Parts: sequence; structure tokens; C-alpha cells
Amino acid sequence: MPSEGRRLSYSLRDIAEKLGAQVHGDGNCRIDRVATLSEAGTGAISFLANRRYRPQLLATRASAVILDREFLSACPVSALVVANPYLGYARVAALLASPEPTQAGVHPTACVSGSAEVDASAWVGPKAVVEDDAVVGARTRVGPGCIVARGARVGEDCTLTANVTLCHDVRIGNRVLLHPGVVIGGDGFGIANDDGVWVKVPQLGTVVIGDDVEIGANTTIDRGALADTVLEEGVKLDNLIQIGHNVRIGAHTAIAAGVAIGGSASIGKRCTIGGAAAIAGHLEIADDVHLTATSAVPNSISQPGIYSSGMPVQENRAWRRNVARLRQLDEMAKRIKELEKRLDED
Amino acid sequence: MPSEGRRLSYSLRDIAEKLGAQVHGDGNCRIDRVATLSEAGTGAISFLANRRYRPQLLATRASAVILDREFLSACPVSALVVANPYLGYARVAALLASPEPTQAGVHPTACVSGSAEVDASAWVGPKAVVEDDAVVGARTRVGPGCIVARGARVGEDCTLTANVTLCHDVRIGNRVLLHPGVVIGGDGFGIANDDGVWVKVPQLGTVVIGDDVEIGANTTIDRGALADTVLEEGVKLDNLIQIGHNVRIGAHTAIAAGVAIGGSASIGKRCTIGGAAAIAGHLEIADDVHLTATSAVPNSISQPGIYSSGMPVQENRAWRRNVARLRQLDEMAKRIKELEKRLDED
Amino acid sequence: MPSEGRRLSYSLRDIAEKLGAQVHGDGNCRIDRVATLSEAGTGAISFLANRRYRPQLLATRASAVILDREFLSACPVSALVVANPYLGYARVAALLASPEPTQAGVHPTACVSGSAEVDASAWVGPKAVVEDDAVVGARTRVGPGCIVARGARVGEDCTLTANVTLCHDVRIGNRVLLHPGVVIGGDGFGIANDDGVWVKVPQLGTVVIGDDVEIGANTTIDRGALADTVLEEGVKLDNLIQIGHNVRIGAHTAIAAGVAIGGSASIGKRCTIGGAAAIAGHLEIADDVHLTATSAVPNSISQPGIYSSGMPVQENRAWRRNVARLRQLDEMAKRIKELEKRLDED
Repeated sequence: MPSEGRRLSYSLRDIAEKLGAQVHGDGNCRIDRVATLSEAGTGAISFLANRRYRPQLLATRASAVILDREFLSACPVSALVVANPYLGYARVAALLASPEPTQAGVHPTACVSGSAEVDASAWVGPKAVVEDDAVVGARTRVGPGCIVARGARVGEDCTLTANVTLCHDVRIGNRVLLHPGVVIGGDGFGIANDDGVWVKVPQLGTVVIGDDVEIGANTTIDRGALADTVLEEGVKLDNLIQIGHNVRIGAHTAIAAGVAIGGSASIGKRCTIGGAAAIAGHLEIADDVHLTATSAVPNSISQPGIYSSGMPVQENRAWRRNVARLRQLDEMAKRIKELEKRLDED
Repeated sequence: MPSEGRRLSYSLRDIAEKLGAQVHGDGNCRIDRVATLSEAGTGAISFLANRRYRPQLLATRASAVILDREFLSACPVSALVVANPYLGYARVAALLASPEPTQAGVHPTACVSGSAEVDASAWVGPKAVVEDDAVVGARTRVGPGCIVARGARVGEDCTLTANVTLCHDVRIGNRVLLHPGVVIGGDGFGIANDDGVWVKVPQLGTVVIGDDVEIGANTTIDRGALADTVLEEGVKLDNLIQIGHNVRIGAHTAIAAGVAIGGSASIGKRCTIGGAAAIAGHLEIADDVHLTATSAVPNSISQPGIYSSGMPVQENRAWRRNVARLRQLDEMAKRIKELEKRLDED
Repeated sequence: MPSEGRRLSYSLRDIAEKLGAQVHGDGNCRIDRVATLSEAGTGAISFLANRRYRPQLLATRASAVILDREFLSACPVSALVVANPYLGYARVAALLASPEPTQAGVHPTACVSGSAEVDASAWVGPKAVVEDDAVVGARTRVGPGCIVARGARVGEDCTLTANVTLCHDVRIGNRVLLHPGVVIGGDGFGIANDDGVWVKVPQLGTVVIGDDVEIGANTTIDRGALADTVLEEGVKLDNLIQIGHNVRIGAHTAIAAGVAIGGSASIGKRCTIGGAAAIAGHLEIADDVHLTATSAVPNSISQPGIYSSGMPVQENRAWRRNVARLRQLDEMAKRIKELEKRLDED
């Protein structure tokens, strides 16, 4: 039960119950915030999810720590034992978070078309624009400077934080969180060459975003050429990601910042894609594929697993020498073969 | 001739005439939309531009298909034979597209300076800002949230979709299409080092965009330091591209998403640059150069042709082994040479 | 002393004094603008900072040129001799730049919360939004379409050019310059996996930006998860850069466009990072590290120096052959070893 007053607080026992965790130590102690192991003090709960922070556990002044059983004996304070401490932390942090200010209605400086449908419990902030025939669902927040273009439909409990652009006719599910500068439904990059001059290919599809999707700042998702671009439920995208037209991203796939995905690529469910990876268009990536950062994917991947590419930095002079050899690699391989042949003939 | 009613429709024969195509089958059938081979039904025209979709041709229910002569015998319905089916499709799709809503005038929630010149046939949408001395040409659409800063000049028949930022004094040609979040004319990255502290170099040039240019969502084009940054006519840029100060991009060059081009680079005409490529500054790339995705270009390219770099993904364990060898490449080459020497001496 | 009239002008001698430069030639000549060597005419001062432009020095019609002593004898006009001509140029250009229009007050179309504190000398432009409890310091310019969310604090003499988004509670120092589309304080990418479904980790920290920082168009800087994301004083970021949550960037580090830095990375002071580099999270890079363009950094770097990775383009056919060998590199190395063994045994 939250206590009275400005800040929420719970007993450690209450928190344990919500997490399905085991309490070790004082179940009655009050917890009102989360903090790092090194910064936590009385009233704060911390967590240990990464072995490298073990020394900080030994010195922590937190009231309690969420951790794996393995570290219980090293914990100098009360503890909650769970299987996945980072997940436990996520849950406690959400529990203790100050609630967002709740508002409803249309700010007097917003511009909402008479033909738009904005739920009475939704909020449209200052300088936001909701165009003709657009729909904004219950409890959804359209933040300052956001644009919901004609015919776009946004579900319930969504947040468009600020300066988000939804182009015409895109469809957004429920509980979708869009960070500033996100653009959904810009034209796909469709051009046909007519004797040296590019002719635009009309982009007639739209974008369909499933429930519980989160999209990071300045990420862009293009509308489909004929069919739609689709992000299934639970997809999580970081910042500055490019999703080309007609891409499909399977449910619960997570993609780190700076990734570019070419048009008509199909990404499976539960994949993870590391930062700055590049995925070509017109290919298929199976479910449960994990790409490490800077991976370049020119072809389909049909088997689950971990895949990688990219060249880690070296001291500049060594790199210069090695990179010169990269251009000779095929020749080197042939020389090895020739050497083997000569030795075999001896 | 378009028929009466909400949706445009044409006879197949009319369409053939507009494309310069040969009709095979029923020239009188009515066409009112485009669709993919697998989704098309009566009234829809589809196209086959990629051999891999041939099986879908055999099963299509489209009223007609645009295709190369090679596939005519396999087509179960009426057909338009053309040399470039994708181009033919682009044209038909444009022909059949619902016209954009046409509007003129300044929305009451827009903010237009008294010293700006906005053509009477232009449209300035909700919450848009047109600053002092800016010019907006005939039939140009300045969408919601767009900013046309002081002294910027936009030509005729342009579209700034939404939340586009044109900085002061940039010059935009005619029929230019700018997607949401585009920034044209931010300061170039000019800094001079003064004993460990960076001093800003004023960016005094501007950006000049030619006719018929299209620029994708959240792409950024910096203003020149002294001279201007220039995109010639017909250049097509995808999303999240960075164009540094004083870059020149030749006419009809097309660049895919996520490319970064360093300052003062000069790119030729009719080039194509694949996604996530990186091009250093202060270099020249000839006309008709084609760079595949993820190419890294540290030096000038003087000959037309196809160029590539980048390392495709492998299964993670194999990559770890191979990438460790990358650091030994120069040493490996020397060992091969030594082996050859020893064998020659034998 | 600036002369009367619309354009500032100085004598060459005055400029020399301000730069601490040696005058060669006519110290009385009037200078009213900067220009490139090839475009300069009477009244213009130019500079030579790159040996490759020496031929243009020989033919220049500038009134004066800023240069290194080495090139003095080749200079056909008056000259200012300095140790760092590019820095000298930066200073003169700033001296001669037309001052920004100065404005103060809140534009009637801006939306400023009653609980926000906007200094009387600050300017809030058209369609800008300043939310509850936000603070805007003296002489700071909040340009059109910018959003300063609740509780955000912006120091003195800052410029938010246009369409910048500052999320709630971020803290910006003095003399900070933010280009269009910058997003500061979007949520970090924190997700915890619960049996295949991602659970959001609340992002409770903020972003702290030091004095004299410049951030390029559409760059994104995420707020911290628990602690803060920090950019120290004098950091310079180009466009389309991603800074993950809890990153710390040391003073006077400069980063070129398209770089992605993973969460909790710590970058030293006075580093330079070339375009399109990718830096993993949870690592440390020492002071005075220089990464060339396209570098991929998976691990910490503890020593100052120049580091590189990436593969430069080759003609496509050669690349195809070489890249196929990349996958055999470990095997090639083993074959070399085997050859050496066989020869040794002979």
C-alpha cells in the first residue's frame, strides 16, 4: 500500500509480494525510491544485475538490494532474491515512479480539425495539430508540437511526447510510446529510372504499429509502397533508426540505435539487433536471430543464432598495414594454395 | 479520360497510350487502381519487375499486368508490354493516385511575417512559421509545424510535408518534396582548435537545392562555411542522411538511408549510393559511380563503376576467430612471403 | 574600430592586433568580409590552412590573406602571419559577421506556462512552448517550434534555433547552441526481458549539458536511467549523432556526424571521433583518443593515440573475391602455420 504524502512508499515485504521475490532481512523497512548501489541511502532500493558491480554491493548503503541468490551472502543489507534482478528493478522502478501529470482535453493553442475524433479523456498539448478525420484514443497524450495528419488513427493510452509526426492514415496501436522527432509514414524511397532521370513511385501503403511498441527519438518509419509497413506488438526501437517501406518487424524484437533496415526486409520475432547494424532490403531474417553491433546483413538468415560482422579498432598504424592486406586477400589465399601444392609435389 | 465519380478510372487502352505500351488482351477493361500481383482483383493493374515474383504472376487476379515481353506468355490476364515495367508502374500509379487535397491560403494558426512573400496560390498550414523576408512560391505547400526562416526562398509546386525546418536564407528550387523532420541549412561542423579549446568557425554560406529534388525524413543538410552546399536537380535522398557543409551532389544522384557525407565532398551526376555508406570529406567522386550498401570511401574515385566495401555477417563464433586474424593480416602476408622464399631456395 | 554604415569594417592593422598576428603589407587597408582565396576581391580577407590550396594563393585578389609564415613569400597581397591560420580565420569571420537579429520577449504565438521563468532579455519565438517550471536564462533565444518541457533549465546566451525538443528536467549550461531537430532527454533504451516480452525500465535520470556545447541537427541525447547523461563543457557534436543513456563525454571532445555511442560509455576529454564511428556501451575511452571515421569500438581504450577500423571501398569484383576470403581467414592462418611446420620438418 502506498503511504500518504508526496512520494509513494512501500514496505519491502509489499514489494517482494508484487515481484514474487524472497525477502531476506527487514521486511518492514520502507522503500520510496530506486538508486544505484553507490548512491543509494536509507529508503532506497538498488539492484545487482552485472557481476562487475559486486564491489559496490559490499559497500552499499541502500535499504535493500534486488539480486540473484548467488550474491545474497555478499549483501550487507536487506535483499530481495529474484531470478532476473534487472527485471525486478524495472518493476520496482515503475511502481515507485512519480505518476506523469495527467491532463485531458485540448490545449487552447492546439489545432484540432472539426472532423477529427479526440477521446474526451485524451490530451492534445500546446501547438499540436490533429488534422481531418484523425482519431485519438482514450487517455492518449498528444504532446506539444506533435502532428497527427489526416486520417491517422492513434489507439488508447499512447504517448506522443513532443514534435512527433504521424503522416496521413498511419495506424498506431494501444500503449505505444513515441519519443520526440519520430516520423511515421513518410514516403518510402521508391524511384524508377527513366533514361537517367528518376521518376517517383507513389507510396500508397501506410504504416501499422502494434500494441506496446516504443520508438526512440528521431527514428523514421516509411509508409509502404503498395502494401503496408508493419511493426508487430511489443517491438522496441531505439533512436535514429531507419525502417524502409514494406518492412515487417516481428513481435518483441528490439533494435538498438542507428540501425538501417532496407525496404521489404522481413525481420522475425524476438530478434535483437545491435547498434549501427545495416540490413539490406528484400531479405528474411528468422525468429530469434541476434545480430551484434555493426553487423552488415546482405542476405537472408534462416537459422536462429548469433551473427556478427565488423572490424574492431586497432592502433592506426597497425590498421593501415592490415587494411592494405585486405585488398590482397584473394591473392594471399591463392599463394597459400600454391605453396601447399609445391610442398605436396616435393 | 477519367470516368465520373470518386475514383479515377481509365481504359487499359488509354493507359497503354500514355505509357507508350503495347496492349495484349482486353483494351476496354477499366482500371481504377494499382495493386500487388497477389492482392490485385478486378479493376486493378499490377506489374512484374522482379523475376522472383513470377509465380505470383501465374496466379494473379489483376485485370492487367505491366511486364516485360519475356513474361507475356506466362501472363494469365491482359498485359501491357513495356521496356521498364517498374517505370511503367510508377507512371500508372501516379495517374491513378487520389489527388492531394488542394488548399490555398494561410491557416489562421500559422504565423507569417508581414515582410514574407507568400504566393496567393500557396498554402501555409497550421502552426507553420514563415519569417521575415522569406518567399514561398506558387502552389507550394508549407505543412503543419514547418519553419521557413528569415530570407529563405522556396520555389513553386514544392511540398514541405510537416515539421520541416528551413534555416535562414536557404534556396529551394521548384517541385521539391521535403519529408517530415528534414533540416536544411543548419550550421556546418566548423571548429578550429585553440590550445585544446574549440572555437566556432562561422558558417556564412547557405544551401541551394535544385528542381525536382526529394529529401527523406530527418535528413540533414548543412549550410556552407563560405561557399554554398549544393544539390543539383533531380537528386533523391532517403531518410536520416547527413550532408556536410560545402558538399556538392550532381544531378540525378540517388542516395539510400543512413549515408553520411563529409564536408566539401563532391559527388558526381547519376551516382547511386547504398544505405549506411560513409564518404569522407574533401574528395571527389566521378559521375556514374555506384557504391553498394555499407561502403566506406576515404579517397576520391575517378572512374565510373561499382565499388564496395564492408564485411557481411557470419555466425558469431566464426566471426570471432576470423576477426582475430584480421589483426594479424600483415604478419600473415609476411609469413607467406617467407614461405615462398624458403621454398624457392630449396 | 568598426566603421560607420551597414557592414562592419576594420583596418588590417586592427585585425592583426586582435589576432596577435604580424602584418605584412598595407596595415591601413579596410577589411569588411571573409571569402575563399578564389572568390575574394577588394575588401575581403582570406586564409590558407591547407597546402592543397597554395595555387589559389598565387592568384588571389583578396585584400589580405591569413597564413603560416611558410607561405608568406608566395603571397601576392597583404598578409597576416599567425601560427594557426584556420583559427585566425575563425576569429576574423566572427568579428566581421553580421550580428544576429536581437530580440527579446515572448512572441504572441508562443505558449509560455505561468510557472515558467523566462528572463526579460530572453526571446521565445513563434509557436515555441515553454512548459511549467521551466527556466530560460538571460539573452537566450528559444526559436520557432522549440519545446522546453516542464522543469527544463536553459542557461544564459543559449540558442535553440528551431524545432528543438528539450524534455522534462534537462539542464543546459550557458552559451549552448542547439541546431534544429535536436532532442535532449528522450528516454534511454532500457528494457528488461520477461520471458520473451520486453518490460520498460523507467528512465529516471536526466541530461546535463555543460557550457559552450554545440549540438548538430537531429542529434539525440538520451536521459539517464538512474544517474544522468553528461556532456562536459566545450563538447562539439555534429548532426545525427546518438548518445545513449548515462554516457559521459569529457570536456572539449568533438564528434563528427553519424556516430552512435552506446549507453554508459565514458569518453575522455579532448577526444576526436570521426564520422559514422560506433562505440559500444559500458566502456571507457581515455583522454586524447582520436578515432578515425567508421571506427568500431567494442572495448575500452586506455591509452591516448589514434585508432582506426573499417574497410575502404574497392572495385566491386575485387571486393567480392576478397570478402569471400574473409570468411576463411582463420583457416588461412592455420594453413600458413601448417606450411611452416612442414618446411621446418624438411
